Amino acid sequence: VAFPAFQRTRALTEALAALLSPEDATVQSMPDASPAKWHLGHTTWFFETFLLEPFQPGYRPFHPSFPFLFNSYYETLGPRLARGQRGLLTRPSLGEVLAYRRAVNEAMGEAWPLLPGVLAELGLGHEEQHQELLLTDLLHLLSLNPLRPAYASLARPGGAPPGPLAWVAHPGGTVAIGHEGPGFAFDHEGPRHLCHLRPFRVADRCSTNGEYLEFILDGGYRDPRWWLAEGWAAVTLEGWRAPLYWEGDGTDWKVFTLAGLQDLSTGDPVCHVSYFEADAFARWAGARLPTESEWEAAAQGSSPAGGGLDPMVLRPRPAGPGTSLRQLFGEVWQWTASPYLAYPGFRPAQGALGEYNGKFMINQMVLRGGSCFTPRGHTRPTYRNFFPPQARWQAAGIRLAEVS
Amino acid sequence: VAFPAFQRTRALTEALAALLSPEDATVQSMPDASPAKWHLGHTTWFFETFLLEPFQPGYRPFHPSFPFLFNSYYETLGPRLARGQRGLLTRPSLGEVLAYRRAVNEAMGEAWPLLPGVLAELGLGHEEQHQELLLTDLLHLLSLNPLRPAYASLARPGGAPPGPLAWVAHPGGTVAIGHEGPGFAFDHEGPRHLCHLRPFRVADRCSTNGEYLEFILDGGYRDPRWWLAEGWAAVTLEGWRAPLYWEGDGTDWKVFTLAGLQDLSTGDPVCHVSYFEADAFARWAGARLPTESEWEAAAQGSSPAGGGLDPMVLRPRPAGPGTSLRQLFGEVWQWTASPYLAYPGFRPAQGALGEYNGKFMINQMVLRGGSCFTPRGHTRPTYRNFFPPQARWQAAGIRLAEVS
Amino acid sequence: VAFPAFQRTRALTEALAALLSPEDATVQSMPDASPAKWHLGHTTWFFETFLLEPFQPGYRPFHPSFPFLFNSYYETLGPRLARGQRGLLTRPSLGEVLAYRRAVNEAMGEAWPLLPGVLAELGLGHEEQHQELLLTDLLHLLSLNPLRPAYASLARPGGAPPGPLAWVAHPGGTVAIGHEGPGFAFDHEGPRHLCHLRPFRVADRCSTNGEYLEFILDGGYRDPRWWLAEGWAAVTLEGWRAPLYWEGDGTDWKVFTLAGLQDLSTGDPVCHVSYFEADAFARWAGARLPTESEWEAAAQGSSPAGGGLDPMVLRPRPAGPGTSLRQLFGEVWQWTASPYLAYPGFRPAQGALGEYNGKFMINQMVLRGGSCFTPRGHTRPTYRNFFPPQARWQAAGIRLAEVS
Amino acid sequence: VAFPAFQRTRALTEALAALLSPEDATVQSMPDASPAKWHLGHTTWFFETFLLEPFQPGYRPFHPSFPFLFNSYYETLGPRLARGQRGLLTRPSLGEVLAYRRAVNEAMGEAWPLLPGVLAELGLGHEEQHQELLLTDLLHLLSLNPLRPAYASLARPGGAPPGPLAWVAHPGGTVAIGHEGPGFAFDHEGPRHLCHLRPFRVADRCSTNGEYLEFILDGGYRDPRWWLAEGWAAVTLEGWRAPLYWEGDGTDWKVFTLAGLQDLSTGDPVCHVSYFEADAFARWAGARLPTESEWEAAAQGSSPAGGGLDPMVLRPRPAGPGTSLRQLFGEVWQWTASPYLAYPGFRPAQGALGEYNGKFMINQMVLRGGSCFTPRGHTRPTYRNFFPPQARWQAAGIRLAEVS
Repeated sequence: VAFPAFQRTRALTEALAALLSPEDATVQSMPDASPAKWHLGHTTWFFETFLLEPFQPGYRPFHPSFPFLFNSYYETLGPRLARGQRGLLTRPSLGEVLAYRRAVNEAMGEAWPLLPGVLAELGLGHEEQHQELLLTDLLHLLSLNPLRPAYASLARPGGAPPGPLAWVAHPGGTVAIGHEGPGFAFDHEGPRHLCHLRPFRVADRCSTNGEYLEFILDGGYRDPRWWLAEGWAAVTLEGWRAPLYWEGDGTDWKVFTLAGLQDLSTGDPVCHVSYFEADAFARWAGARLPTESEWEAAAQGSSPAGGGLDPMVLRPRPAGPGTSLRQLFGEVWQWTASPYLAYPGFRPAQGALGEYNGKFMINQMVLRGGSCFTPRGHTRPTYRNFFPPQARWQAAGIRLAEVS
Repeated sequence: VAFPAFQRTRALTEALAALLSPEDATVQSMPDASPAKWHLGHTTWFFETFLLEPFQPGYRPFHPSFPFLFNSYYETLGPRLARGQRGLLTRPSLGEVLAYRRAVNEAMGEAWPLLPGVLAELGLGHEEQHQELLLTDLLHLLSLNPLRPAYASLARPGGAPPGPLAWVAHPGGTVAIGHEGPGFAFDHEGPRHLCHLRPFRVADRCSTNGEYLEFILDGGYRDPRWWLAEGWAAVTLEGWRAPLYWEGDGTDWKVFTLAGLQDLSTGDPVCHVSYFEADAFARWAGARLPTESEWEAAAQGSSPAGGGLDPMVLRPRPAGPGTSLRQLFGEVWQWTASPYLAYPGFRPAQGALGEYNGKFMINQMVLRGGSCFTPRGHTRPTYRNFFPPQARWQAAGIRLAEVS
Repeated sequence: VAFPAFQRTRALTEALAALLSPEDATVQSMPDASPAKWHLGHTTWFFETFLLEPFQPGYRPFHPSFPFLFNSYYETLGPRLARGQRGLLTRPSLGEVLAYRRAVNEAMGEAWPLLPGVLAELGLGHEEQHQELLLTDLLHLLSLNPLRPAYASLARPGGAPPGPLAWVAHPGGTVAIGHEGPGFAFDHEGPRHLCHLRPFRVADRCSTNGEYLEFILDGGYRDPRWWLAEGWAAVTLEGWRAPLYWEGDGTDWKVFTLAGLQDLSTGDPVCHVSYFEADAFARWAGARLPTESEWEAAAQGSSPAGGGLDPMVLRPRPAGPGTSLRQLFGEVWQWTASPYLAYPGFRPAQGALGEYNGKFMINQMVLRGGSCFTPRGHTRPTYRNFFPPQARWQAAGIRLAEVS
Repeated sequence: VAFPAFQRTRALTEALAALLSPEDATVQSMPDASPAKWHLGHTTWFFETFLLEPFQPGYRPFHPSFPFLFNSYYETLGPRLARGQRGLLTRPSLGEVLAYRRAVNEAMGEAWPLLPGVLAELGLGHEEQHQELLLTDLLHLLSLNPLRPAYASLARPGGAPPGPLAWVAHPGGTVAIGHEGPGFAFDHEGPRHLCHLRPFRVADRCSTNGEYLEFILDGGYRDPRWWLAEGWAAVTLEGWRAPLYWEGDGTDWKVFTLAGLQDLSTGDPVCHVSYFEADAFARWAGARLPTESEWEAAAQGSSPAGGGLDPMVLRPRPAGPGTSLRQLFGEVWQWTASPYLAYPGFRPAQGALGEYNGKFMINQMVLRGGSCFTPRGHTRPTYRNFFPPQARWQAAGIRLAEVS
């Protein structure tokens, strides 16, 4: 990976943050979500910690307290600010964090020839993950503001409705799953291994707001038959009656977005549903969610289409050619029926980077694809995203599957 | 299944309860655990609801409120007492619940020829599950009593130490997993299906208290490297430093059991550990937990040995012949690395019985084998037990595996 | 105080408990309430600890663990079972606790001549307090049982309606408040001291269910104007819409009592209201609650009438002669507007008994009078009861006051 | 009150906020504390709501949503943002809130001749209350920041140690308590009324850090004998072992202040203690806290000395002449032994302003005097401050009293 790629990725994060006031960048709306300022600092700390400190002789950290502030979850690297307290950091100011970024960017430029490419790529993949989180966390924050503010006045995509859902058959059999080869991937995307699949069919597009609305109108949120027991408990305790960010009643709904409150577009993929909701909807629809192996097998040969993540556009992007599946990578993440587990033969790295993925392999479900908040270079058929089944603030939607 | 089998199973539950005072049978020690009296009533309600009401013409329920009291989690069957309130039932008295059992037992005898055998068997399997739960819930209750009371003055098994752990290799390949055939099994034990396994090795016996003590003495509970992130959070928040029911410090430990406080026997299988502890121990030991497919493949051909569940004995029972694996069925449940999921092609039953297993398939891990609290007829190689990864009050232990 | 008085008081506690099954006597319905078995043991421990141990040479405690189990809140006396865990004591059994009572009763008889009378009287006053708590805690427990069981089939008092409320004027001025003299009183009932009162008027009887129902029907629970801010928060969070134990809607209400569910009697004093409700009702009624000085000044010269606490009767008792105030002592406790504070010059006792009252003088409001659950000898004009303002499970009602 | 007084008071609030970044002004550190930006908006809303809207014909509110955002607790005025969500307001920006202030200040200037003076004075008293809260809430926020930032680099007062504590005797008797007369006071400072006091003595100065340190070193936080039961529960649950903002151990302590972390000055009045701590310290010292009547009687004739609240100085100010009591008004608030209650004859105002004080008269204790954060015009002998007994983030300290 070349230094200009580093520069472009880092600049995109800063461009995403440029629309935010210091206040917007500082407040934490819930323990699961981090302030934008923290994302800006944490991604910088990542390069400082895993690249500059070990590989740039004589590198002196920017600020002695920043490792404590910006370490996310690496136990091996010492104590850190509790996750739920990231919103207390009125200092350092946004300006100071941006200065931190500039200093580390510069130091990275000087050190670049000395740095292991694989770690630099990891740092960029990490930065891209936080670009998406910065946006989803921000959406959560703004959604709680009674003024209903917009992050940007984004143009609504004026696309045609998606047309009827078609089922794409896959013959099943033994398929190879997981990453292998020259390109970058996170550790948990491999090792590539064989899976035996039964024949199945997968929807050629995501389920829409309109289809999900039928589920609501059919009493989906009031009928325990469709729900896992834990999901039904969440429906009852949290009072769920629609996806997160839907507001309204009956057939008249609006959706809070980064462009503010907008009319519900029945043709758009349903978004901001939990695994519990995705699973209940699928059961109601007489279908099921695909496993991650099925999803990957069906998506093989496809690749994300052009169009980057532009803070002024933030719109769905078409899938690239390759399969007859639509909406694979640029619309919504797609919950799969697969718990997040190690692939056979997976071994975490030695040292702190071994904590990157492996220690989260419990009580989480895999999502595949990518959303309109996902940076382009960050989508690929083997990519494994994961969240707990009750999480709703991510851009997660539904692609159905069924037995052939 | 013949009526005397019904009678024997029901009588065993009552024999287990016969050692309890009305007070012992009534109190609920935590929301996860139910009072013995509730177990006695709930299993009776199960026969009343799923057998007598639909199949015995003119059957009149014993008491109009008992369905509300003793329905566990069947949403389809209407409202019910909240789980955490089962301990408020000072009425009906233990005597009344036993009278309820007698009445239903009698009605079952009259109705027996009219009843579908598969449902009768389901009711007995269900009864056996609650026999074990009655004992594990009781152990939890007694463990919280400062008087440290014993349920029974059980004879300690005076067996020889288990000898060194040996690894049994399995060649992997395509294996058939799951129940199929004439005998009874729960719905989620099937359909039988093919799995592809890599070659692996599995420990020929469970890990012992002595081996687990080494983990403790090596600082296992203080080193986040061994732990899943959620497990480490539990260690920290709950202050875990040994298995549940261990009391002591350093190398001097006692264990609270149904026979009261006893010296730790280093040769016994370690018990009352969570999945998090089992997983951390395995990682510390340079091994891993087996998947449920690996466990079942390795156990095929083995069967539980003789010796039932006797309230006055409650001791480990030897595994039957068939494989070189020891301690498969009569010592401790063995955590596997497999989340609890539907087998391919699984379809829950129509109606309320469809809620029996299917709706719990999230955030739980599979355990295999059986414990010394498990009724004999209730153990078989395809049996799938499941609990959340943080659960410690079940008789759960560890069998290691590793890549061949 | 003579030994037969001791015997009578102790026997009354046992008579109250005689209607309970072992289960009823064991379960704890909330941390604020204790099981009857615990009350039986705790009052016994009190005599053992404060009388037998110090004054009976060679006395040997009944059981080495009972001080840990039955110490309520005396920090000076060492560690104790946490309040919320009193319901875990399935052992000792009810029979064992009754045996404990018999043994201590017997030892008390032998030791009687050696015992300081003032401490013996304190022990009896203490026992009487727990007689009332045993009943109010039991009512709470039974109220949560879906079977709606009755403690006893009590005869309803068939009295005439109370007639209109009349106001009794008091001229105010300097009055002496508090206990002084030969009879027994708790430490906090003194020292007797002068208070300056403005002229005031006090209702000659308690407010009735019917009057409270008007408050409800007038939207009292939906209008924040009547409520203290903390009270309104409780209304909102807890969903209060009527006194505790009222069930129904609109004008059709039933009340759960120790005799089971009964029709609301509009002439009875309203009961089981919190201070917040009493205060809001008074404000709605254009009145206020009396201070404890006003209450005592108005009640001076009155004394409780005959009729003890009989477990088979448990009915309101008429006030004795002396003032024109009705319903002073035998119906409901009456919330006053006075926080529970030390009287001027109050000094707690040295040692553990100094913890009896003094350390609770914060965040509690004084109640005066007595209820139909209060033992007769336990009522007197200077008696100070106290509970937090949100407490509703005590037999607390309302007597209004206003400025003259 | 003249318009320039309004301008001066409003300008002081803005001067206090001028040292804050937008981030500092936005974050809420706990539900009890509000962000500076919210204080700036709320005080402005107060003038808009209670003065401009009713008295300036044709006044049009600045922003239709601001009443929802900035209403603190006035139920009568409609729904409002939940207290714990005040920190989510990244919008409006600090700049917008300051523009809101400017607009309302201007409108107030135009409307001034039409406005009732008593309400204008109430608005200024209210503004002054929030000036102190802005500082105490900010101190709490900054104290949680690992960078330990300073609000301002304040000069430490270099005063001489306070010298030994002397007792000032008061003869007791009937004294008049409360506000009466031409000057402004809050409603609850009256009506003026007679109280009967026993002779008492009061400390001529506040208790010092050094004296409090003796309490700590004597095991004060480990000995339940000194504590109210609720206070001891707080010590145990919250792990209190020193006043809030003390850091260190043994005899080596630092204190976090608005000037950052500073050495503990043993001669300064102890500050940031709860009522529970003040009460325990007094009991340990063989004394007690004064009642509010005692405090006021002792302070009569005294008045606050010169010196305003200057954001760059923020230092203790000497008490004015008048009594031999030192440190009455400009150092720390002084906890009294009096629960916060209505004075005899108190009647809250009609309408929303009736909610100003009256509805908080439960579970709070009165503090008297004033702190170095209190605006000068805001201190007077009749002033009644009140907080719950567990509150520690206010500038509250201790003045001892004892029986003569």
